[in-house]
Amino acid sequence: MADNKKMVAQITSMEEDFAKWYTDVCVKADLIAYSSIKGCMIIRPYGYAIWENIQKILDTRFKETGHENVYMPMFIPESLLQKEKDHVAGFAPEAAWVTYGGSEKLTERICVRPTSETLFCEHFADIVKSYRDLPKLYNQWCSVVRWEKTTRPFLRSREFLWQEGHTLHATAEEARAETIQQLNVYADFHEQDLAIPVVKGPKTPSDKFAGAEDTYAIEALMHDGKALQAGTSHYFGDGFAKAFDIKFTDKNNQLAYPHQTSWGVTTRMIGGIIMTHGDDNGLVLPPAVAPIQAVIIPVQQHKEGVLDAAYALRDRLAAAGIRVKCDDSDNTPGWKYSEYEMKGVPLRIELGPRDIESNQCVIVSRVDRSKQFVSLDGIEDTVKASLTAVRDAMYAKAAANREKKTYRCKTLDEITATLAEKGPGFVKAMWCGDEACEDKVKEVTGVGSRCIPFEQEEISDVCVCCGRAAKKMVLWAVAY
Amino acid sequence: MADNKKMVAQITSMEEDFAKWYTDVCVKADLIAYSSIKGCMIIRPYGYAIWENIQKILDTRFKETGHENVYMPMFIPESLLQKEKDHVAGFAPEAAWVTYGGSEKLTERICVRPTSETLFCEHFADIVKSYRDLPKLYNQWCSVVRWEKTTRPFLRSREFLWQEGHTLHATAEEARAETIQQLNVYADFHEQDLAIPVVKGPKTPSDKFAGAEDTYAIEALMHDGKALQAGTSHYFGDGFAKAFDIKFTDKNNQLAYPHQTSWGVTTRMIGGIIMTHGDDNGLVLPPAVAPIQAVIIPVQQHKEGVLDAAYALRDRLAAAGIRVKCDDSDNTPGWKYSEYEMKGVPLRIELGPRDIESNQCVIVSRVDRSKQFVSLDGIEDTVKASLTAVRDAMYAKAAANREKKTYRCKTLDEITATLAEKGPGFVKAMWCGDEACEDKVKEVTGVGSRCIPFEQEEISDVCVCCGRAAKKMVLWAVAY
Repeated sequence: MADNKKMVAQITSMEEDFAKWYTDVCVKADLIAYSSIKGCMIIRPYGYAIWENIQKILDTRFKETGHENVYMPMFIPESLLQKEKDHVAGFAPEAAWVTYGGSEKLTERICVRPTSETLFCEHFADIVKSYRDLPKLYNQWCSVVRWEKTTRPFLRSREFLWQEGHTLHATAEEARAETIQQLNVYADFHEQDLAIPVVKGPKTPSDKFAGAEDTYAIEALMHDGKALQAGTSHYFGDGFAKAFDIKFTDKNNQLAYPHQTSWGVTTRMIGGIIMTHGDDNGLVLPPAVAPIQAVIIPVQQHKEGVLDAAYALRDRLAAAGIRVKCDDSDNTPGWKYSEYEMKGVPLRIELGPRDIESNQCVIVSRVDRSKQFVSLDGIEDTVKASLTAVRDAMYAKAAANREKKTYRCKTLDEITATLAEKGPGFVKAMWCGDEACEDKVKEVTGVGSRCIPFEQEEISDVCVCCGRAAKKMVLWAVAY
Repeated sequence: MADNKKMVAQITSMEEDFAKWYTDVCVKADLIAYSSIKGCMIIRPYGYAIWENIQKILDTRFKETGHENVYMPMFIPESLLQKEKDHVAGFAPEAAWVTYGGSEKLTERICVRPTSETLFCEHFADIVKSYRDLPKLYNQWCSVVRWEKTTRPFLRSREFLWQEGHTLHATAEEARAETIQQLNVYADFHEQDLAIPVVKGPKTPSDKFAGAEDTYAIEALMHDGKALQAGTSHYFGDGFAKAFDIKFTDKNNQLAYPHQTSWGVTTRMIGGIIMTHGDDNGLVLPPAVAPIQAVIIPVQQHKEGVLDAAYALRDRLAAAGIRVKCDDSDNTPGWKYSEYEMKGVPLRIELGPRDIESNQCVIVSRVDRSKQFVSLDGIEDTVKASLTAVRDAMYAKAAANREKKTYRCKTLDEITATLAEKGPGFVKAMWCGDEACEDKVKEVTGVGSRCIPFEQEEISDVCVCCGRAAKKMVLWAVAY
C-alpha cells in the first residue's frame, strides 16, 4: 500500500468546484469505488466501517425504545405495490422490475423494494388481531432501489443502504408520538454523534411521502449552502391500514383500524458528514463514527525504542476503548499526515525520540489543526477529552457556517437579492399555506420549502409571496 | 399477545412427518411468516434475533483474522456475469432478471446477485496493482437471490441472507491456507457455538462451486438422518483473475495473476439448528445464539413479593451479561412453560413464594428437562454454568444421533440394506475417484457424495461401486 501511492492524492478545492471536491473526497478517502453498474456504488472498507458505526449507535437506540429488527423479502409483486394509490404513484415510476426468473417469464412482474410499507402492511394484516398484539415496533436494515436518472455517491444512488422503521399502534395519538420520538432520535444522533446541527419540522403538504398524512424531516445545511434532508419520519394515520385491511379488536371488543408510522435514514448521512465537515485536505470525521479515532505516527521510527513506544501507546489506547491505529509503514511522516487528514481521522498523535524522553506526545486535531504537547501519564483520558473537543469544535464550526448562511427575508425580491449577494443558504420566510405561493417562491427565487420548523420565528406577519396573512415560517433552500 | 393464543400451538410430531414438523416449528416458534412473494420468507423478530447473534459472533471472528466488510451493488450486468464461463453456466439459469428501470427498458438486462464473485473481481482488477496491495481480505453481509423451483424456510428460499468472503492473495499457497482457515472458522462455530458436530472435507470434482478449483464443505447430520451442507469455502486458483484480467506486479517486478478464495454461510444454519436440536415440543436453541438464554417464570405471581423477586433476579442476570426475560404476563405458568419450550429457550427459571423463602430457584434445562434446585447466592455463575451444560448436552445428543446413524459399508448392496434397515444416515464408503461410480452410487442406493472427509477411515481397499482400487473414503447421504 506504499510505494505506488507515495504521493498523497490531490483533490479539487471546495471553492473551485464543490461537486468535484465532493466526489474527489469520496474516492480519494477510499470511501467508495465505481463499478460497471451505472448509478450504484461500491462501499469500500473505510466507508463501510463508518456505516457500521452508524448502525451500531442507531440500532442500540432503536432497541432501547422497544423496536425489534425483522427482515422482509426484497421483492414486491406489482399488485401489492398498487394497493395504496398514492404510494404506487410515488414509487412505481422509479422501480426496478424483475420480469424473468431464470429463463421463465414471470406471470406477474415484481419490483425490487424501493421502500417496504406494502410488505409490512401485508404482514401486519396477517399477525395483528387484538389490541394485545399492539404496538408492533419493527425496524429493518437493508438496501433499497430507486431507479434515479442522475446519481451521486451516497447522496442519490440507484441502490442505497438504509433502515426503515415500521410501527403499528392502537391509537392515532400513540402513532403520532412515535413519529416525533423517532424524529428526535435522528436529530439527536445528528447533533451529538455526527456534530451536524439540524432543523426539525413537518414538510409542507406538497412534499409529503407518498401515502403519508404527515412527513417530518431533519434538514441540515451543507458547507456550500445547500440543504440536505437527512432523515424523515412519517405518520400514516389509518390510510394504509384501510388499504390493506389491517384490523384489530380493541379493548371494547370493537373492530378498529390501527395507526401507522415509518421512518428512515440512509447512507446519505455519510454524504452529509462529508459536505458538512470536510475541507480542502479531505474528509473530517466525527469521532463517534470514525473507523480510526486516533492515528499514531512514529517520528524517526528507525531509532531505537520509537516503534516499541508507539505500539505500547497504541495498546494502552485500544484497551481504553479508543479506535486507534499505529502506522508503522515506511512512508514518511509527512506523507502519513496528509493521508490521515484525507481520511478525516479526528486525532493524529506524533511520537518521536524526544517525546519519549520527555514522557509526552503531540496531539493534533483534524478539525482546526491545533497542536497540544501532552503527558503520556493518563494519556487515555487526555485522548478521550481531545475526541470530545474535536466533536465540539466540529459542531461549532458547522453551526457557525449555518448561522452565517441563514437569511431572514420578507419579500421575494429580498430573497433573490440576499442569495445573489451572500450565496446559497437557508432562507427563513413566512408562508400563507397556499401551494401556489410555495411553487412561486421556488420559481422566482430558486429555493424550495424544506420544512416548517418547530422553532418558529415571526419574520413578518404576511406571506413572503402573496402578502396575505402568514400562517407559518418556512425554511427554504436549494436542496441536494 | 395473550388471550388470543392462550392455547400453545400444537405441532406435528417428528416421527409422524418430519417435514411438516419442521415448518410447524418455523411458524409456531415465530421464526418466520409467509408473504405473497412465493419462495421468499419474512424473518420475524425472534428468528432475526438468532441471525443477529450468529452475525455478531462470526463478524468478530472474521475481523480478528483481518477481514474487512464492504458492500457491493446488488445488481450484476449480464455481460459481467458471463466473463467466467463455468460461473455463468452455474448461476444464470436461476437468476432473477431486471429488464425495466421505471418505464424504460434496459439496454442490457441485469440480474440480482446470486453470489458476488464477478463484482469483487471487477473491483479487484480496479484496485490491485502491486504485491503491496495484497492480500485483500473482504467480506460482505447481504441477501442474494436464486430462483429455485421448490423452496422451504431457511433451507432453500429464493432470497436468503448470508455472508460472502472474497479474498485475493499473491500466492496459491496463501489462498489455499485462507480457504482452509475459513472452513475451520465455520466448523468451529458450528461445533462450539451451535453445538452441531460437522464433517469437514473437499467436495468431489462434480460437486464443486461453479468456477472453483476446489470446494470444501462442512456437512452436518440432521435428526432425520439427512445431511445438510452447512458452509462452503472455495479455492479459485487464478481462473477468475485471468477471466477478469486481475494482475499485480510481484516482488520481482513481474506481472502475475493473484489467487482467490470465497466462502459463505447463510440463514440455512438456522434450519440446521432446528433440525439438529429440535424435538416434539419445538425448537431447542444453542445458548450462544439464543435471543433469550433464560426465561424467568414467576409462580403464584399475585402473591406479595414474587414479582419483585423475579424482577430483581432478572436484573442480576442481565447485569451479568445473560440474555434474560421475565414473563410477568397473566398467562398461567403451564402455558408459559410450553410457550418457551416451543421457542427453544435453553433455561427456564421458576421462582415462587416458597423458593423465595428458601433463597432458591428452580432451573430447568430445555434439552433434557433436568431440574435443579439452586441457591440464589451466586446465581449468575450457576446460570452461566447451566448454559454451558445445555450446550454440552445438546452437542452430546447430536453427536450420539450422528454416531447411531453413521454406517460403514463395503458394497452397494450393503448400503441399500443398511439404509432400508436403519433408515437414512451418513454412509462411509470407499471410492475410486471415477465420476461414473459416484453417479451410480446415487442411482442405485439414493445417497450422493457429500464430501471426502479430512478424517479418512479405511473401510475397505476397493471402490464400493466398481471394485477397483479405492482412492478415498467418501461421506455419502441424502441431502437437504
